Amino acid sequence: MTNINLVSEYKCFDGKLGFYSYFSTTSNGEMRFAVYQPPQATQKPVPVLYFLSGLTCREDNFMIKAGAQKWASKYGLMLVAPDTSPRNTGIAGKNDQWDIGTGAGFYVDATEEPWRSHFQMYSYIIQELPTVINTKFPTEPNQTSIFGHSMGGYGGLMCAMRNPQLYKSVSAFAPIVAPIECSWGQKAFSPYLGNNQKTSHEYDASQLVQKVGYHSSILIDQGTSDQFLTGQLLPNVFEQACGKIKQPLNFRYQAGYDHSYYFICTFIADHIHHHVKYLGLID
Amino acid sequence: MTNINLVSEYKCFDGKLGFYSYFSTTSNGEMRFAVYQPPQATQKPVPVLYFLSGLTCREDNFMIKAGAQKWASKYGLMLVAPDTSPRNTGIAGKNDQWDIGTGAGFYVDATEEPWRSHFQMYSYIIQELPTVINTKFPTEPNQTSIFGHSMGGYGGLMCAMRNPQLYKSVSAFAPIVAPIECSWGQKAFSPYLGNNQKTSHEYDASQLVQKVGYHSSILIDQGTSDQFLTGQLLPNVFEQACGKIKQPLNFRYQAGYDHSYYFICTFIADHIHHHVKYLGLID
Repeated sequence: MTNINLVSEYKCFDGKLGFYSYFSTTSNGEMRFAVYQPPQATQKPVPVLYFLSGLTCREDNFMIKAGAQKWASKYGLMLVAPDTSPRNTGIAGKNDQWDIGTGAGFYVDATEEPWRSHFQMYSYIIQELPTVINTKFPTEPNQTSIFGHSMGGYGGLMCAMRNPQLYKSVSAFAPIVAPIECSWGQKAFSPYLGNNQKTSHEYDASQLVQKVGYHSSILIDQGTSDQFLTGQLLPNVFEQACGKIKQPLNFRYQAGYDHSYYFICTFIADHIHHHVKYLGLID
Repeated sequence: MTNINLVSEYKCFDGKLGFYSYFSTTSNGEMRFAVYQPPQATQKPVPVLYFLSGLTCREDNFMIKAGAQKWASKYGLMLVAPDTSPRNTGIAGKNDQWDIGTGAGFYVDATEEPWRSHFQMYSYIIQELPTVINTKFPTEPNQTSIFGHSMGGYGGLMCAMRNPQLYKSVSAFAPIVAPIECSWGQKAFSPYLGNNQKTSHEYDASQLVQKVGYHSSILIDQGTSDQFLTGQLLPNVFEQACGKIKQPLNFRYQAGYDHSYYFICTFIADHIHHHVKYLGLID
């Protein structure tokens, strides 16, 4: 097992927030992640909730801005926030655009050059990172859920639907539910995945849900004043897809909220509550 | 009355968070501040709680990181967070050091050149800014309290003790309670105030409390793992000063916490609760 390096650590809500780096074999380079261990974790293994962040974010944004630690501390839940892509990969042009390359991994396993040697975020999220977390931290490895924001909201939905056995529940804030139908998704999928429609569809939340559904109700919050609502997020595509297969969905339009963490922090307690219910921490 | 410019606005916990700029006559230049208006403020005037930030901070840090909006929304409390100094003043060397000049106003009225023409933070905080806030926002102008962090914790204590009629209550996170006895304070007070000991003492929280006391109990939280505890913050100086005059003081050492916003967010609810009690929002 690889070593992980503690970059910094903070006491927070009686638990421990740590930022870590290590050499990721999947990403073929350094990866960073943040872990909040609730106070209960000093006594016994605890369930884990993964948060996948949006475009340009790092492993720290969620821990700084979302206000989730309060609730994780209350319920005894570990929080894990990975970075949104490998960094310092040496790939030419990796930092040239904010919506592809560094900070924009889109949670897919790239099949194309020059990305494929590092950008394997799907495998990283569903396999390597959980192995690291379950080895190095006091987790209940079979009690795991996932959620995220924007690109990470899409990532959480997609990872959960493709791996229903790994995640007890899923929720999202303002997710990119139909990446193959919006310019953000198209711009990233084409260089990462080539023009393989089958592969692209397997990474598209709205396509996926029609094929495989999900075993528990999906919670989504979406601000009505979100600047990306009609151009990129396309919530109606996912709502219609869920409707076709009668997928249980609690899709909440939140009047006047935008795409920011001020929206996320307002509803974070509801999302944590959704997950701790499925993780058996409350009735 | 001067115009204020809305820089950006976000819905948050059913209220409205705005970032503003305007020309400050006291500061002789642009100043920025943040205001969180709770949902109750659309119906009636509400009390105001000012938060003074620490060295290097701007008007946004508190609103991004402290998690206070949740509680302000619950109780019907307006939050105001000013910047920590004028910026873009044209003063030579203003940005050369992080602990004097830009981002380090220390909440004093500078008497010395080159600072005195812009760095009038004491008058700005106790006079000009409240006038702007009470004119432009739905406040109860006589229901005001103040708190802060580090340099701003000191600033809140000092402003409250020098103006007990303006502030119903005061609290602080890891305040610099004795600026005249630590290097941060000495380094700033000397160029801002010259070598006038009387003036310096009037800005020192531990000197002030012995002379004037305060009309309500002071709440202070201090992490025991704070990296600045013994070198700069000197809490025992303030505790001894309060002891001498039997000033009611709830000084809480919080085991294992450091100087960061992860410490502040952990205890923010207690501080808001302290203030809303004195502001008459709860019994």
